[in-house]
Amino acid sequence: MGSPVHRVSLGDTWSRQVNPDIERERNIQSFNVERLTNILDGRAENTALRRKVESIIHSDPKCSLKDNYFMTQNECYEAAIQRKFHIQTIAKCLGWSENSPEFFYAYRAVSGEVALTIHSIFLQALRSLGSEEQIAKWAPLCNNFQIITTYAQTELGHGTYLQGLETEATYDAATQEFVVHSPTMTATKWWPGDLGRSATHALVQAQLICSGARQGMHAFIVPIRSLEDHTPLPGITVGDIGPKMGFDCTDHGFLRLDHVRIPRDNMLSRFAQVLPDGTYLKLGKLQINYLSMVITRVNLLWGEVTPILQKACVIAIRYSVIRRQSCLRPSDPEAKVLDHQTQQQKLFPQLATAYAFHFLTSNLLEFFHSSYDAILNKDFSLLPELHALSSGLKAMASDLCSWGTELCRKACGGHGYSKLSGLPSLVARVTAACTYEGDNTVLYLQMAGFLEKNYLQAQASQDSTSQRSLPQSVAYLTAADLAKCPAQKAADFLHPQLYTKAWAHVAARLIKDSAHHLQTLMQSGADRHTAITSV
Amino acid sequence: MGSPVHRVSLGDTWSRQVNPDIERERNIQSFNVERLTNILDGRAENTALRRKVESIIHSDPKCSLKDNYFMTQNECYEAAIQRKFHIQTIAKCLGWSENSPEFFYAYRAVSGEVALTIHSIFLQALRSLGSEEQIAKWAPLCNNFQIITTYAQTELGHGTYLQGLETEATYDAATQEFVVHSPTMTATKWWPGDLGRSATHALVQAQLICSGARQGMHAFIVPIRSLEDHTPLPGITVGDIGPKMGFDCTDHGFLRLDHVRIPRDNMLSRFAQVLPDGTYLKLGKLQINYLSMVITRVNLLWGEVTPILQKACVIAIRYSVIRRQSCLRPSDPEAKVLDHQTQQQKLFPQLATAYAFHFLTSNLLEFFHSSYDAILNKDFSLLPELHALSSGLKAMASDLCSWGTELCRKACGGHGYSKLSGLPSLVARVTAACTYEGDNTVLYLQMAGFLEKNYLQAQASQDSTSQRSLPQSVAYLTAADLAKCPAQKAADFLHPQLYTKAWAHVAARLIKDSAHHLQTLMQSGADRHTAITSV
Ligand SMILES: Cc1cc2nc3c(=O)[nH]c(=O)nc-3n(C[C@H](O)[C@H](O)[C@H](O)COP(=O)(O)OP(=O)(O)OC[C@H]3O[C@@H](n4cnc5c(N)ncnc54)[C@H](O)[C@@H]3O)c2cc1C
Ligand SMILES: Cc1cc2nc3c(=O)[nH]c(=O)nc-3n(C[C@H](O)[C@H](O)[C@H](O)COP(=O)(O)OP(=O)(O)OC[C@H]3O[C@@H](n4cnc5c(N)ncnc54)[C@H](O)[C@@H]3O)c2cc1C
Repeated sequence: MGSPVHRVSLGDTWSRQVNPDIERERNIQSFNVERLTNILDGRAENTALRRKVESIIHSDPKCSLKDNYFMTQNECYEAAIQRKFHIQTIAKCLGWSENSPEFFYAYRAVSGEVALTIHSIFLQALRSLGSEEQIAKWAPLCNNFQIITTYAQTELGHGTYLQGLETEATYDAATQEFVVHSPTMTATKWWPGDLGRSATHALVQAQLICSGARQGMHAFIVPIRSLEDHTPLPGITVGDIGPKMGFDCTDHGFLRLDHVRIPRDNMLSRFAQVLPDGTYLKLGKLQINYLSMVITRVNLLWGEVTPILQKACVIAIRYSVIRRQSCLRPSDPEAKVLDHQTQQQKLFPQLATAYAFHFLTSNLLEFFHSSYDAILNKDFSLLPELHALSSGLKAMASDLCSWGTELCRKACGGHGYSKLSGLPSLVARVTAACTYEGDNTVLYLQMAGFLEKNYLQAQASQDSTSQRSLPQSVAYLTAADLAKCPAQKAADFLHPQLYTKAWAHVAARLIKDSAHHLQTLMQSGADRHTAITSV
Repeated sequence: MGSPVHRVSLGDTWSRQVNPDIERERNIQSFNVERLTNILDGRAENTALRRKVESIIHSDPKCSLKDNYFMTQNECYEAAIQRKFHIQTIAKCLGWSENSPEFFYAYRAVSGEVALTIHSIFLQALRSLGSEEQIAKWAPLCNNFQIITTYAQTELGHGTYLQGLETEATYDAATQEFVVHSPTMTATKWWPGDLGRSATHALVQAQLICSGARQGMHAFIVPIRSLEDHTPLPGITVGDIGPKMGFDCTDHGFLRLDHVRIPRDNMLSRFAQVLPDGTYLKLGKLQINYLSMVITRVNLLWGEVTPILQKACVIAIRYSVIRRQSCLRPSDPEAKVLDHQTQQQKLFPQLATAYAFHFLTSNLLEFFHSSYDAILNKDFSLLPELHALSSGLKAMASDLCSWGTELCRKACGGHGYSKLSGLPSLVARVTAACTYEGDNTVLYLQMAGFLEKNYLQAQASQDSTSQRSLPQSVAYLTAADLAKCPAQKAADFLHPQLYTKAWAHVAARLIKDSAHHLQTLMQSGADRHTAITSV
């Protein structure tokens, strides 16, 4: 066949002039754009900071994403590693601290197309599950990239059902070590990011066995590759899991452990400990193990899922302003496709959704920050609500954002199928969020359980004199029934409070109906799981 | 980073033993599987033939798709070219004729992963739009691959609005040639398959200009690459449009024409002709130009869109039988995920949809075959119905099959995100069908127009004495109103006829409401386009 005569490439220089159709739309704005921008950024100072960071990143050729769509997975991955460390270098020069807003804006400016994102998930898990000594030991190694880490929970055979994880960590009191082992083929760790080629250390979730008893899933830090020459350590089989729908900048991997010995200190022990003689001490609730998943979900909504829909809306709506196709009236010139009502019906609800999730997630983030310290200090009262909100919202947001991003893509016609539109990669990326950090179906079921439980509690406390208070987010379950819609005139529908009331009413009614349906089913003999999935 | 220590590959030898969980499900069948297979294949002889072809293709290493997911786009494309010609060679040896069921089964056996699929779309267009002499001249060249062809309609600036196509074919009576030309950048042909690297000839849809008048879009055969050394001919700029969401086995391309001269005979002239002196003769309806798109749509539904959902269902349902995750009751062993009701609620409707589209499409194909000959012989009475049915069904099937395929993918959890599950490629491929061969939104609007028109006609003929008959597919518009649901007892709901009646009733009511709504809007001053997109 020979090679093609011409190839489309993003290397050409494009005109930097603003398209006149875009210009015209921008001039007929009905609100103060800068003010809205500041609100979205949190405040004006953030907008200024974000712009400063973006100008640094966007003018730096080493941060460019220009060639991404023309790369093999391997090339993409290597470029993402280089970008990661280049940003790290910039940060050092400019004195950005880890977890600073500067870092957040820098990653956002490269659309999250950096490698070693699971390295930070390891760090979060360490900070949530590790003792102060463990944090003091491992965090600096991570921060300086003296070690590269991953979070290895999922196995070939188990993702959702964590009790089913087969990897074992058996305590050997004689040597004060854990023996970490994959007893079966299905126990192979599968999917952890940064594991395929890079990680030197893995946080391995494994069944703890000590003094002959199984104590459930715990987190262990396991060295897997030599810090000298990067070869796998004895007993370790590790590699890349192969081609995926998206995420070329991450090397998802597999890991088999053959009786790998690690020191007793490598079990993260803020909430559980194994004493030298093998005595097991529980210092927190069982669910605490999921705390690091909660953090990841919240960050995911804020840093990945919502921004993807936002970006898709920007691309599709801007394109719809400059794309002209078909006439609205036979004698007219061709219309901007955004002037076709069907196009507006597709895109504007997505835009509204993107705004809604922005503010909802920002709220969740606030709630998270206000409850996290308490949890670390072993006050677990807010954990169930935090868990339920992060689960339910992750499921809903990832579903709607996936659907919306694909809709934006299709709304760009043929050009939306070209990778150069940016949209196919957004679609491939956001849809993964329906699966990782908890399959959405399972998360919905968990949220349903939380709602049902609180409904029953609300009922119980109304019937009794002891008024136990409900979590704040479901306080509406005890609100007085709205006999009828409180709107008196059309203009009342312009008050958000009216909607909040109406939605609270709808939610309470649906929860009530489901809870009763569930009870009926269970009374007629169905077991709980069958009943809850039938409602 | 060095290269990975291990890489997942499909090269390993897998056990050919049937998984015991699958075996068990197969043994509890409640119907005769072979009989159903024969029904799906049309008849028992077809099943036998299909199996024969499949055994030839599947045992031939040159037809293997094993390495597909590990290839670059270029490698994928070259493999697809080789596969195409290898099947061609097999066909020659075994005496399969072009368009034979053997060919259909062979392509199906390699999941359509062959190159030069647009070559057959060119052939179809030639057979529909060409005169007998033109067919006699060009078809054998195509069939023997002495030329490689493409169908070049869409331009950078126009896909949907065909009147907006800018490519011009101006007749020059002095030399009896057409001068084919791209007057602007947006006139560049964009997306035609097989064009980027392979095609030697393009069927170019262009605005015909003769005797100074514009005659609308017509089809021209334009040689674009040398048959000697495959370089672009004078005046031709051609190449690949770059990376796409899917379809790595097709080289979608672009094409610019700079005053390229072609003989008068190269305008396809079954339904329109330009005489040597430049006189324009119309021999058919304007819409006839869309005939080749109708054929492509029908074939698409049968050969591409429906089979993709079928495949996704097979993969996801089989997987759900062998995947065990979570317990239904606390003391039980882990359940097959198919035993979770939510999993059934996801997958079974997709399976039902796949069956429904199979039979619906097979019906459409029959209708197509029965009307096609009449149309070629210039009896256009069935064309509007054929056009509407193929448009509406293409839109509905591609939407639902895309949605369903993605749902099947997500129902496989993490493994559904791995390309090795086969599902990501199916998703990327089927969603393209929402765009090509007519953007779905636009097709829905066309279908809506057809329904409205027939509703109004049904009204008019009921009011008058002259009973003009409606197209058979919308005959229900004149059926007597069902005063109430005709079911008397629960068992009546087991009769498909009852559903057909009920759906006809619902459809008639919705069409009626929409038509009235439309009229109200237009009476209050809205123009037709705004009105129809608001209904
Ligand atoms: C891009 C990507 C990145 C990832 N990164 C990591 C990582 O860094 N580290 C890591 O450890 N893991 C990672 N994972 C793995 C991920 O966490 C799991 O894939 C996820 O938890 C789902 O588990 P599963 O794949 O086993 O699906 P399964 O649980 O097998 O789900 C299969 C089907 O069964 C259904 N199902 C399962 N249980 C129930 C139930 N109780 N009730 C009803 N239905 C049920 C599901 O809804 C689904 O439809 C990643 C995955 C992806 C796709
Ligand atoms: C994989 C693939 C293969 C292809 N192969 C070929 C090929 O072989 N040959 C070829 O010629 N072309 C090919 N195409 C091009 C394809 O036919 C066009 O992309 C398609 O017709 C849509 O046109 P467009 O891209 O211009 O979208 P547009 O028409 O620009 O659509 C953009 C948006 O505007 C909306 N819109 C447009 N007009 C209206 C209207 N009147 N009313 C309401 N909304 C409207 C659409 O709904 C859509 O949301 C291919 C495309 C793809 C993706």
